[in-house]
Amino acid sequence: MTPRITVWNEFRHEKENRAVSDIYPDGIHTAIAAGLRANGLQDVRTATLDEPEHGLTDDVLAQTDVLVWWGHKAHGDLTDAVAEKVVQRVWDGMGLVVLHSGHFSKPFKRLMGTSCDLKWREATDKERLWVVHPAHPIAQGVGEYIEIPAEEMYGEHFDIPAPDELIFVSWFTGGEVFRSGCTFTRGSGKIFYFRPGHETYPTYHHEGVLRVIANGARWAAPTASAPRAFGNRAPLEPLPEDPHAAERSQEGFR
Amino acid sequence: MTPRITVWNEFRHEKENRAVSDIYPDGIHTAIAAGLRANGLQDVRTATLDEPEHGLTDDVLAQTDVLVWWGHKAHGDLTDAVAEKVVQRVWDGMGLVVLHSGHFSKPFKRLMGTSCDLKWREATDKERLWVVHPAHPIAQGVGEYIEIPAEEMYGEHFDIPAPDELIFVSWFTGGEVFRSGCTFTRGSGKIFYFRPGHETYPTYHHEGVLRVIANGARWAAPTASAPRAFGNRAPLEPLPEDPHAAERSQEGFR
Amino acid sequence: MTPRITVWNEFRHEKENRAVSDIYPDGIHTAIAAGLRANGLQDVRTATLDEPEHGLTDDVLAQTDVLVWWGHKAHGDLTDAVAEKVVQRVWDGMGLVVLHSGHFSKPFKRLMGTSCDLKWREATDKERLWVVHPAHPIAQGVGEYIEIPAEEMYGEHFDIPAPDELIFVSWFTGGEVFRSGCTFTRGSGKIFYFRPGHETYPTYHHEGVLRVIANGARWAAPTASAPRAFGNRAPLEPLPEDPHAAERSQEGFR
Amino acid sequence: MTPRITVWNEFRHEKENRAVSDIYPDGIHTAIAAGLRANGLQDVRTATLDEPEHGLTDDVLAQTDVLVWWGHKAHGDLTDAVAEKVVQRVWDGMGLVVLHSGHFSKPFKRLMGTSCDLKWREATDKERLWVVHPAHPIAQGVGEYIEIPAEEMYGEHFDIPAPDELIFVSWFTGGEVFRSGCTFTRGSGKIFYFRPGHETYPTYHHEGVLRVIANGARWAAPTASAPRAFGNRAPLEPLPEDPHAAERSQEGFR
Repeated sequence: MTPRITVWNEFRHEKENRAVSDIYPDGIHTAIAAGLRANGLQDVRTATLDEPEHGLTDDVLAQTDVLVWWGHKAHGDLTDAVAEKVVQRVWDGMGLVVLHSGHFSKPFKRLMGTSCDLKWREATDKERLWVVHPAHPIAQGVGEYIEIPAEEMYGEHFDIPAPDELIFVSWFTGGEVFRSGCTFTRGSGKIFYFRPGHETYPTYHHEGVLRVIANGARWAAPTASAPRAFGNRAPLEPLPEDPHAAERSQEGFR
Repeated sequence: MTPRITVWNEFRHEKENRAVSDIYPDGIHTAIAAGLRANGLQDVRTATLDEPEHGLTDDVLAQTDVLVWWGHKAHGDLTDAVAEKVVQRVWDGMGLVVLHSGHFSKPFKRLMGTSCDLKWREATDKERLWVVHPAHPIAQGVGEYIEIPAEEMYGEHFDIPAPDELIFVSWFTGGEVFRSGCTFTRGSGKIFYFRPGHETYPTYHHEGVLRVIANGARWAAPTASAPRAFGNRAPLEPLPEDPHAAERSQEGFR
Repeated sequence: MTPRITVWNEFRHEKENRAVSDIYPDGIHTAIAAGLRANGLQDVRTATLDEPEHGLTDDVLAQTDVLVWWGHKAHGDLTDAVAEKVVQRVWDGMGLVVLHSGHFSKPFKRLMGTSCDLKWREATDKERLWVVHPAHPIAQGVGEYIEIPAEEMYGEHFDIPAPDELIFVSWFTGGEVFRSGCTFTRGSGKIFYFRPGHETYPTYHHEGVLRVIANGARWAAPTASAPRAFGNRAPLEPLPEDPHAAERSQEGFR
Repeated sequence: MTPRITVWNEFRHEKENRAVSDIYPDGIHTAIAAGLRANGLQDVRTATLDEPEHGLTDDVLAQTDVLVWWGHKAHGDLTDAVAEKVVQRVWDGMGLVVLHSGHFSKPFKRLMGTSCDLKWREATDKERLWVVHPAHPIAQGVGEYIEIPAEEMYGEHFDIPAPDELIFVSWFTGGEVFRSGCTFTRGSGKIFYFRPGHETYPTYHHEGVLRVIANGARWAAPTASAPRAFGNRAPLEPLPEDPHAAERSQEGFR
C-alpha cells in the first residue's frame, strides 16, 4: 500500500529571494513532491505555511501517513497549536521526514527534547554523505556515498539524542563532519532526519538526495498496528487480597 | 569529587494523607536524602514544590550537579518557567534522576518528547527488578534482582524513546513487565529513570532501592567538559572561492 | 517481492522423544513452514541437521533470503564449516531468525560475540510476551501481548550485546522476565531473536507466535543494496605530496 | 581505585622498520604506557607478542582490569588459545581498549561478530576527530575536536555492529569519514575502540590522543559487580503442578 505523503514547505524564501526562486520556481515542496513521484510514490500532496492552518488541517493530518518537513526562516510563525497537532499525530503513528533546517522547527525540537543546535556555514563546501549502515532500507540504491557539489555546511556537535540508527555521516570540504541521516521513534511514529539541502543550492534536484527522501518516506510509513494502551488495569494474574483497599479507594488520585 | 545533589519532592501527599505520612513523616525527600548519605553521598540538600520558586532558584540549580525528582499529583503546579530552567540545566550538564510518577513531570516529558504514558495499578503486587545490564555502574552491588514486597504496578507499553541503556526490567505479580531502569542523554546531561516507589509503600526505606538511587546519582554527575559550541563557523580547511558571496551576504538570515 | 525462506531444524527430538513427536509429527520445521505460508509467505523450504551438509549447501544458502533457525541438543553436531558459511551469508545480507534454544547455536553465538547464556526452567510457567516497541513492523497485528499457556522459562540475565531494538519482554509465572524479541544487524544482515518455543510445548501451533515469526522473516529480508566495499583507496580530494612515499611503498603490508 | 592496566603491543614493526623505530624507539607500548602515567594512571604494565604466552599469562590477565591492544601485521601469530582467554576475561568484566589496526585482531573480531573491515590509505591525510557525544567521560578535556597532522586514513563503511555509544567521528583530507571512537559491552566487559594511530606516524606522542586513551581506560575499568548467573532455576513464585514432570525428568537435556 502506497503511503499518503504530505510535503510541507515554509515557502517564503522562494517568494523573497531571486537566487532561490531561480532554483525552485514552484517552491521547494514542488521539487520534492516531483522527486517522490519519480521514485514511485504517487500519493503526494503539498502544504505551505501561509495557507489557512498552515495547510495542516485535522483532515489533512488524518489522511497523511508521512509528513515531509522543510522550514528555515519562519519557524516561529508556525502556531503552537499546529506544532502540537503534528507531534500528536507522530505519536499516533504518522511518519515524519525532517529536512535540513527543519532541525530547528517546532515539531522536531519538541520530539527530540534537546536544543537541536549545530554549527553551520553557507559557502562553497562540497558535501559527501557516506553510508555507515548499508543494511538499512533508507540506504537502498545509494551506493557508497552521495556527493553534493556545493551545500551549506552543518557541523558537529549536533545536539540531538543518540539516534536509534545512524545511516549517513557527512564530510565537508572545510573540515567538518555531521551525522546527516538519523532515525528516531517517538510513540508509534518513525522519524527520519536528513541533512541536505539549503535553499540557495539545487539540492532537491539531485537524484541521490531525492532517492533518499523517498526511501525515508517509505521507511517512515506506519506499518505496525500494535496498540498503545495506557491507564488503570486489573491484574491478569491473581493477587493476594489488599489490606489497604479501603484507604486506596479514597486516595483515588492519578 | 562528590556530586552536589538536590532531592526535589512535591511534598503534598505527606501533608494530606495519613497513610503516607505514617511512612514518610518528614517527607519522601528526607528519606531519599538519608539514603543517599548512607551510601556515601554527603553533599545532599532538598527542595519542595511549595517553597518559593519551588525551591529551585537559579542559585540552587547552578550549584546542583544532580537533581533527584519525585512528583505525582501536582505536576501541573510546577511553573513552566521552572520546568524550562530544569531542562536547560540538564542540557548544560546537570544530571537528573527521575523517580516513579516523575515520569509525568514537566521536565521529564519535555526531555523525552513523548507522552511518557503507561499502565498502572495500585494493589498488592510484588515487584522484582531484574538486572539486564550487569556491567553498568548503576547495577553495582545490587545482586541479580531487587525484590519489593508490595508496590504500585507500572506496565508496558511505557511510551518513552528507546533508552540509551536498559538496566532493570520489572516483573509484577499481576502479570505485567516494565522497563524500570533506563538511561538517556539530552545535551550534556545524563538522565536516569528509576520506577519505584509509590507514596503509599515504604519503598524509599528499602536498602536496594536506595543503593540504586545513589548509584544513579553518581553515574549522572557531570564528568565531561567537552564544550557544546554552535553557530556560524569559518572553515578549518581552504575552500574554493565563493561566486555567490555577494548574494549570500545579503541573504544573511538564520 | 516475497522473500525466499529456509526453515532449518535440528530435527532430532522429534525422532527420539514421543512427547515431542506427538506435538510435531512432521518436525518443528514443518510446523513453522506451515505457519509462514499461512501468513502469506509462500516461498518456504526446509532443511535439517542430518541431511548432507545439514541441508545448507552453497546453493541453498545462495537462494535463501531469510534463514529461520531451530536447534537445541545437537548444536555441537553442526560442522564449523557450515556455521561459518551461515555467518558469512548473514554478513552478505541474508536475514536470520533465531528461535528459542537457537541462542546457543554456533551461528548465533558467533554473530553475537558473547556467551548467549541465560537462566531456564522447564515446568508449567505461563509466558506473556509484552510489546515494548509498538511501532516496529515485527509487532504488527500482535495486540498488547502474546500469551502462551505453558512454556519453558528463560530468565535474565540474557548475555547478549544490547540489541539494536527491543520489541518483546516476557513475563513468567515463576517470577522471571526476559528480553524475548531482539533485533541485531551484523554486516548487511538483519537478525531477529525470538524466544519461544521449547520442543515439549505446542508453541509453533500458536497463531500469535507464528505471526511474529512471519513478521520477523519479512523484516529480516534484505532490502538494501548499498555496497560494503573495503580495502585500499585513492583519495577523493587532493592531498599534499607525501615526503615518505618511497618508504611507505616498501612497507606495503596490511 | 586506580585500574590495573596492561598495554599489549605486537612490537614487530619497531624491530623491523627504521621509520617506526625512529618514532617509537622503545616500542609503541612504552609510549602508550608513558601517556597513561602522564594522565594519572600509575598501575601500568606492558606485554608483547613475542614474550612467552604473548605476555598474557593467566596471572597477568587475572590481574588486569583494562587491557590496551595494539597489533597490525601479525594478528595471525596470536594463538587462538590466548585470543580466547582474552575474550573470556572481557566477558568476565575486564575492560578492553582496542587501538587502530587492532580492529582486525582476533579478540576484537571475535567480540564484534562482524568482519571489522574498512577502507584505508597510508598517505598525508590530516585527521580531525570531532566529539559527537560531549557528555561522555571519554570526551573529557578534549575540546571540540582532536587534530592529528598526518595519519593513515580509515574510511566507512566500518563493518562493526552499531556501537552502544558513538563518541568521535573523523574527518580526513582525502574526503572520507570514520566512526573513530565507539563503545561496546560484551558480557560484563566494556570495550572502547579508538582509531588512531598508525605505526609510521608519531600519533602516540600526541597529547590529545593519549588523553583519550587514558579516559577510555578509566571508563572501561570494571565498576559493577552485579553477578552474571546462569543455568537451571527453581521458581521464585509458586507454579501450578506439572502434569508432565515424569516425562521431563527423563528428557533432562540441555
